[in-house]
Amino acid sequence: MLLFNDFETLDVFGPVEILGKHNDKYSIHYYSMDGGLIRNNDGISMLTLKLEELRNAPDVFLIPGGMGTRIEVENKLLIQKINDIAKASQYVLTVCTGSALLAATGLLDHKNATSNKRAFDWVVMMGPDVNWNKKARWVVDGKFYTSSGVSAGMDMTLGFLADRHGMDVAKKIASRIEYNWIADKDNDSFAAR
Amino acid sequence: MLLFNDFETLDVFGPVEILGKHNDKYSIHYYSMDGGLIRNNDGISMLTLKLEELRNAPDVFLIPGGMGTRIEVENKLLIQKINDIAKASQYVLTVCTGSALLAATGLLDHKNATSNKRAFDWVVMMGPDVNWNKKARWVVDGKFYTSSGVSAGMDMTLGFLADRHGMDVAKKIASRIEYNWIADKDNDSFAAR
Repeated sequence: MLLFNDFETLDVFGPVEILGKHNDKYSIHYYSMDGGLIRNNDGISMLTLKLEELRNAPDVFLIPGGMGTRIEVENKLLIQKINDIAKASQYVLTVCTGSALLAATGLLDHKNATSNKRAFDWVVMMGPDVNWNKKARWVVDGKFYTSSGVSAGMDMTLGFLADRHGMDVAKKIASRIEYNWIADKDNDSFAAR
Repeated sequence: MLLFNDFETLDVFGPVEILGKHNDKYSIHYYSMDGGLIRNNDGISMLTLKLEELRNAPDVFLIPGGMGTRIEVENKLLIQKINDIAKASQYVLTVCTGSALLAATGLLDHKNATSNKRAFDWVVMMGPDVNWNKKARWVVDGKFYTSSGVSAGMDMTLGFLADRHGMDVAKKIASRIEYNWIADKDNDSFAAR
């Protein structure tokens, strides 16, 4: 999990809640550019490891969105790190404007992707050669999973587990945490605005 | 926000995401019995303040659930602290088995409340004199808001904002974060099991 200041709370902790429940498979670690405490507007102070300390590429690399992406998209060292890790990871998941950070690497060029609808025009500018899908809640293109807003981010994470481990695994986790999963990835009710 | 080790991730950060968006009204602070870093199974290390440092009763006191509640319900010093803070707060919100910690104070006796369905029988034992409502997603009784599982916790938080600040405020926040709010508090799809 990549963190940076002013990340969006649920973009991180929605997927974390879900991946963490499949805990024979996923052990979650939090990294930031400089390590140490990462903060946001919800009063959160989360302890992170330094990206340099990441020795092996993660199985799943998750990039959240949030207001912080507006600054981090200009952070060339971070974008280079994201590029290297995303290339080496088995899967890359983004929530909200996390797709802008991934798009800035060029790895999404000519691939299908989405982002949250509120920031859509800005995200498109960060990746003019990406095939952006505005109607989708989440989009899968090879190893890249990109999602729309906070509900879609959680729903995509369940969709990812369903794709990788079977529908039963995803349904059991949703039931265990008593989460009302919307499993339709194609029709975002927020796309109309 | 009360934290303790092995809290349930989304019980905390779902409501936080929502309350934080009404940020002219709510500034969120995280407290634990001893302060410092609080951890859970999702790899989270969150910095907290010490409960003793809480000088004024909070406007809204939020108690999450999680496996940690099984230990904390026996922690007499913590239950006494919860009792004092809950009495002095304007509103008290619980998610999942957070209602067991609140019930252990006796403040819910002869009041209506609910909890998540997976742990329902255990929670009922922690508050035998509470009027437990198994069918509800969340229950409001005076200043006490108690909710079922993780979806219900987020939905209750929007319901709380709707009750306190008007339906428009809640709808605007759900739309801004692109969250599919289930506003019906009475019928929990997980109650049947």
